[in-house]
Amino acid sequence: MQKIYMDYGATTPVDKEVLDEMLPFFDKYYGNASSIHSFGIDAFNAVEEARERVAKIIGAKNDEIIFTAGGTESDNIAIKGVAFKNKDKKSSKGYNIITCAIEHPAVLETCKYLDSIGYKVKFLPVDKYGIIKLEDLEKAISKDTFLITIMFANNEIGTIEPMQEIGKIAKKHNVLFHTDAVQAVGKVPIDVNKLNIDLLSISSHKIYGPKGIGALYIRKGVKLQPILHGGGHELGLRSSTYNTPGIVGLGKACELGLKRMDEDVLHMTTLRDQLIKNVLEIEESYLNGHFSKRLCNNAHFRFTAIEGESLNMMLNDAGIAAATGSACSSKKLKASHVLTGIGLTPELAHGSLRLSLGRKSTKEEVEYVCDTIPGVVKKLRNMSPLWNR
Amino acid sequence: MQKIYMDYGATTPVDKEVLDEMLPFFDKYYGNASSIHSFGIDAFNAVEEARERVAKIIGAKNDEIIFTAGGTESDNIAIKGVAFKNKDKKSSKGYNIITCAIEHPAVLETCKYLDSIGYKVKFLPVDKYGIIKLEDLEKAISKDTFLITIMFANNEIGTIEPMQEIGKIAKKHNVLFHTDAVQAVGKVPIDVNKLNIDLLSISSHKIYGPKGIGALYIRKGVKLQPILHGGGHELGLRSSTYNTPGIVGLGKACELGLKRMDEDVLHMTTLRDQLIKNVLEIEESYLNGHFSKRLCNNAHFRFTAIEGESLNMMLNDAGIAAATGSACSSKKLKASHVLTGIGLTPELAHGSLRLSLGRKSTKEEVEYVCDTIPGVVKKLRNMSPLWNR
Repeated sequence: MQKIYMDYGATTPVDKEVLDEMLPFFDKYYGNASSIHSFGIDAFNAVEEARERVAKIIGAKNDEIIFTAGGTESDNIAIKGVAFKNKDKKSSKGYNIITCAIEHPAVLETCKYLDSIGYKVKFLPVDKYGIIKLEDLEKAISKDTFLITIMFANNEIGTIEPMQEIGKIAKKHNVLFHTDAVQAVGKVPIDVNKLNIDLLSISSHKIYGPKGIGALYIRKGVKLQPILHGGGHELGLRSSTYNTPGIVGLGKACELGLKRMDEDVLHMTTLRDQLIKNVLEIEESYLNGHFSKRLCNNAHFRFTAIEGESLNMMLNDAGIAAATGSACSSKKLKASHVLTGIGLTPELAHGSLRLSLGRKSTKEEVEYVCDTIPGVVKKLRNMSPLWNR
Repeated sequence: MQKIYMDYGATTPVDKEVLDEMLPFFDKYYGNASSIHSFGIDAFNAVEEARERVAKIIGAKNDEIIFTAGGTESDNIAIKGVAFKNKDKKSSKGYNIITCAIEHPAVLETCKYLDSIGYKVKFLPVDKYGIIKLEDLEKAISKDTFLITIMFANNEIGTIEPMQEIGKIAKKHNVLFHTDAVQAVGKVPIDVNKLNIDLLSISSHKIYGPKGIGALYIRKGVKLQPILHGGGHELGLRSSTYNTPGIVGLGKACELGLKRMDEDVLHMTTLRDQLIKNVLEIEESYLNGHFSKRLCNNAHFRFTAIEGESLNMMLNDAGIAAATGSACSSKKLKASHVLTGIGLTPELAHGSLRLSLGRKSTKEEVEYVCDTIPGVVKKLRNMSPLWNR
């Protein structure tokens, strides 16, 4: 049976060009990048070249990039790193950290943890599209606020937050601005200087790089306390032997992502719009998220009287890999905090389907998916006690 | 020029069998292991098979293994995880954590950090071979002690600590026992139950697996607080998308390591003893560490009136990749804490050379190294103002 992958929001295959560049670093240039002999120097040079490529895709300088094990670690280092540096502001009157209700768990759970140990955290609500209100943000800031962390684009519903405006507000109030840009890198042009972003999280496996590697942009001068202690790698901010093949892979993925961005975006936008147009022809189907302030590869739907899990199972049986929301929470039964965050009841939230496209998605795949979904929805509704037509 | 790698203590090349098993997980079975579709299930099954292989090499159960980004993270999770769970014992009279002076920085710096935030940490001294004294350990334990963390084998001088005896003491006093076994796995048979070990850190790239992946053994019932917050992977202890290729690689490396252990150990011991015998024929050369309680692949020397850095540079020019001590600290100028820990003055400590062997090391390589070192030492001594013969 034909297998169609439409879950690029969860993870992507490693691009052939990326893998080819990584391969020699497993068993040929395998030295420890901290070693001073020739094997070490080969690895070190590769790490530094990758750093430059990562910096470039967000308009940063080389020495503003550190490598991590992935987006989750980048978010943790950024947010805890700043919080621990500002622990004297704990238990203050005003909010210390401002985030929003529909962040990825890597940000949300980190903020909840900090809240539980005495930091004051404001979780801003979002509107029905998933967008924060700038006046809420501005109102929440006080002299006790040291960090705003708002995601660039939402991983479930694809909504793009108003980065430029948030950056301006952060700058005006002299508050650091971190963004989880895991879903945006490679799909949205990013310039950390134009956007006044101080900290930005990158994940490799969302942009056709390998899993287990990520990066954190840290604007020059921003001070963090590390969460991993050890050999003092990465300016003391992230101790651990350099994952050279992973770093090389992320570097190449960024280079390709930047080079191919216009082409990729056009390709995915075309397919996405075709998906949205066709799926919305199904009776009582709705698009979650915003129509235009939306990732080029994301189409997120809900269907009345349908269970998202069952829908995904049946699509899987038809050879289509999709998702209800994020992969992290796909084995949990709780309604998505993103969908309840945009005002859906848990019942409505449970009827969801995320189709996320990639560089390799094809028109034929989209057509097959558009042809398949109506029948599956109909079948499920015929079995549903909630569907009485 | 021929290039000889004799720095397997710093890192190892990925074994061909390991790489072959990893490859399909980059671009064929690339699903997110948390996804419920077929791509996700393929990845999930591979992760769980790897978990079983990792468990096996230390005699643990599958569900006692979590995957991390490497040895440093494993050490951090184990030590901070236990400490944060026991924060009510902070600022007590007796020691909370007992470690030793010659630990890897991943343990040492973590313990120093905990000490700086109010935990009481005892850094046990070691004898001239690098071995802790058991009576010191027993004396340091009080009702406030919740963790002993002593490395299995030292990364610089190769000394193997008395695990069995430490395990017995820990059990008798009902204190948790963590060990950084990064250098020992694959070179020493390990059974966590026989040794009464509660937490054990594993690194993949030291055992012919890929970089950027590691594991932590956590005995059933031992409670930790996570240091990364997010999607709740690995029983909530280590959130992050599964690094499937890395995990598969570590699993295969453990399987091979266990299967080949007798053969590998015999091979490396033979070469090591040949190295030691030959190098010690050089005037005023000494072996650091213990003669028998020693890793099968480690030969660590010091030479009077020689600068270790210069020695390594000249060996590198002769095509030999060696080290002064650990790779992590190879770019720092401070004398090794391990060597000062065993009683050497900083001057003596600076005259060091670590040769560490591996599965692929050959008799010819060892002969070339044994032939090369005397000349290099002589040349350096001829230039040294400290050498007056």
